[in-house]
Amino acid sequence: MDRTVDWDGSGEGAVTAVDQRALPAEYRLRRLATVDELVAAIADLTIRGAPALGAAGALGVALAARRHAGDPARVRDEAERVAAVRPTAVNLRRGVERALARLGDGPDAVLAEACALLDEDEAINRRMGRRAADLITAVCPDRPLRVLTHCNSGALAAVAWGTGLGAVRELAGRGRIAEVLACETRPLLQGARLTVWELREMGVAHRLCVDSAGPSAIARGLVDAVIVGADRIAANGDAANKIGTYALACAAARHGVPVVVVAPESTVDHATRSGADIVIEERAADEVRTVAGVPTAPPDTPVYNPAFDVTPGALLAAVVTEAATFRDGAWTVEAPAPVTAEAAR
Amino acid sequence: MDRTVDWDGSGEGAVTAVDQRALPAEYRLRRLATVDELVAAIADLTIRGAPALGAAGALGVALAARRHAGDPARVRDEAERVAAVRPTAVNLRRGVERALARLGDGPDAVLAEACALLDEDEAINRRMGRRAADLITAVCPDRPLRVLTHCNSGALAAVAWGTGLGAVRELAGRGRIAEVLACETRPLLQGARLTVWELREMGVAHRLCVDSAGPSAIARGLVDAVIVGADRIAANGDAANKIGTYALACAAARHGVPVVVVAPESTVDHATRSGADIVIEERAADEVRTVAGVPTAPPDTPVYNPAFDVTPGALLAAVVTEAATFRDGAWTVEAPAPVTAEAAR
Repeated sequence: MDRTVDWDGSGEGAVTAVDQRALPAEYRLRRLATVDELVAAIADLTIRGAPALGAAGALGVALAARRHAGDPARVRDEAERVAAVRPTAVNLRRGVERALARLGDGPDAVLAEACALLDEDEAINRRMGRRAADLITAVCPDRPLRVLTHCNSGALAAVAWGTGLGAVRELAGRGRIAEVLACETRPLLQGARLTVWELREMGVAHRLCVDSAGPSAIARGLVDAVIVGADRIAANGDAANKIGTYALACAAARHGVPVVVVAPESTVDHATRSGADIVIEERAADEVRTVAGVPTAPPDTPVYNPAFDVTPGALLAAVVTEAATFRDGAWTVEAPAPVTAEAAR
Repeated sequence: MDRTVDWDGSGEGAVTAVDQRALPAEYRLRRLATVDELVAAIADLTIRGAPALGAAGALGVALAARRHAGDPARVRDEAERVAAVRPTAVNLRRGVERALARLGDGPDAVLAEACALLDEDEAINRRMGRRAADLITAVCPDRPLRVLTHCNSGALAAVAWGTGLGAVRELAGRGRIAEVLACETRPLLQGARLTVWELREMGVAHRLCVDSAGPSAIARGLVDAVIVGADRIAANGDAANKIGTYALACAAARHGVPVVVVAPESTVDHATRSGADIVIEERAADEVRTVAGVPTAPPDTPVYNPAFDVTPGALLAAVVTEAATFRDGAWTVEAPAPVTAEAAR
């Protein structure tokens, strides 16, 4: 597959995006040649996921800088318009600001900065995937593994490669994956819609299950390792991730199955001491009362819909980032290596 | 609500059934005046659930005995036709055979036997509900309780009252329920479709959540007790129930929240030594690949779809039937009390 978000230098130049609304029914690469089109694509969730939004923000500024080369004030207005589409998406604004900082050096410099952001994101993902694969190989049986994953932590959640599913991609490349069991991930079904699609693209054997079948599969000895991403990680290794991760970790702990969280350093918040300090966002009730627009319960049914849960670090075999590992209660930071575009390949 | 399956003596007499396909959108009581109509209603899942099928089988024989009063061979043919609709439903055939045994005494005796079966089913449910409520009251805090339940173990799964949800009904009658958290129960959504409907009918405060939010709710201290039914219980207290029960029990064990299984004696199989001897049925892949007919993953996606999981007796605070309690590794059988139609009221 293409990068989830990328730059197409042909013609006047344009942003390209894998249309996440069309998956899994259809793989559609959209070409967004104007800021208006990009803004619309962010608003309608063609582009979603924190790292992808960061990339889209930077590329949006590059697009504006090309179109309005002699008018920096106009470029700034356009950049603000991009950043404002999803005001709570901090990565989006960060991407915009990073590219905008190069505006004084001309449109080519802005584009180069945006492309560097994309390359770095992919390099970081590949690096954490290698590090996680090394660790998983060390703690798991020496044979192709049966991995369980939850939600989508793949290329579609980033610019390319993926975090949790990036580690699976790395393990598959090493011939170390027997099968991936993908939980469908209610309410929004990212597992059924996106992870299954990515596994098929990778050519990795997989099965789909309802979320509550995951713990049972672990109990029945059908899973060698659980590999997931994370939304936020506290200093003590507690990890907030998609609702359902905690249930898998509870079962895995009972059966000695390692749970490995793979996420970028930007997810780790050392100022947050433990998971108890992470506020759990509640999402819209209709996500639970309907599936793909079809009602499953009376429309006024009260709902409990937490977006994620917190898994204690003590239940995790490891948290792996591109630079550090949390294991047995402590962080180990690897000697930094340069992250460059070449290293990404 | 009416009994899930019942006899209507008006006119020529007929079987009545709450149409479970129409819920929760519509409450529809169907009147099935012929064996053909009854057979169709069993085949199309208007009537479902083991005890309800047992009742339908017995009432089907009563219907046939009335229509063909002078022709016992014809009645036997019709009875066989009813029993054969769902060949794996043992309760259906048992109900047919119990009513058929009275054929020599005339149509009224057959009907009386069928009605006795219905009354007994309700009396058994009410009795186990009282016993479970007593136990839950004893082990839980002395205030209205926040209960979590999974799947549908209510009146709609039986003739009336319910098993797990029957205990909730009993507790609600005693003013001991603050709120019920109902898991939607993928893949077939019995929680969203049926349990929410029953709780609303009862006037009990409730919220609906996706299955994987249940363990997280337990971890966050939002649940005082987990109350569920069971499909089959082994001699050592291991309980097979709808997929997802095990995940709840794992989380509940970590947080000291009692899990109580409420099920009839007919569910307990003392010949099965442990849950390891219970065969886990796998159901159709399309249950997972679609929701309410809407595809959620590519149509040829391989699926893992176990119908239920096994929770070790060691994770349960108790298993409660109408006559016995499994607790701390041993069964205690209560002195038998007569189960009569009067006792049911």
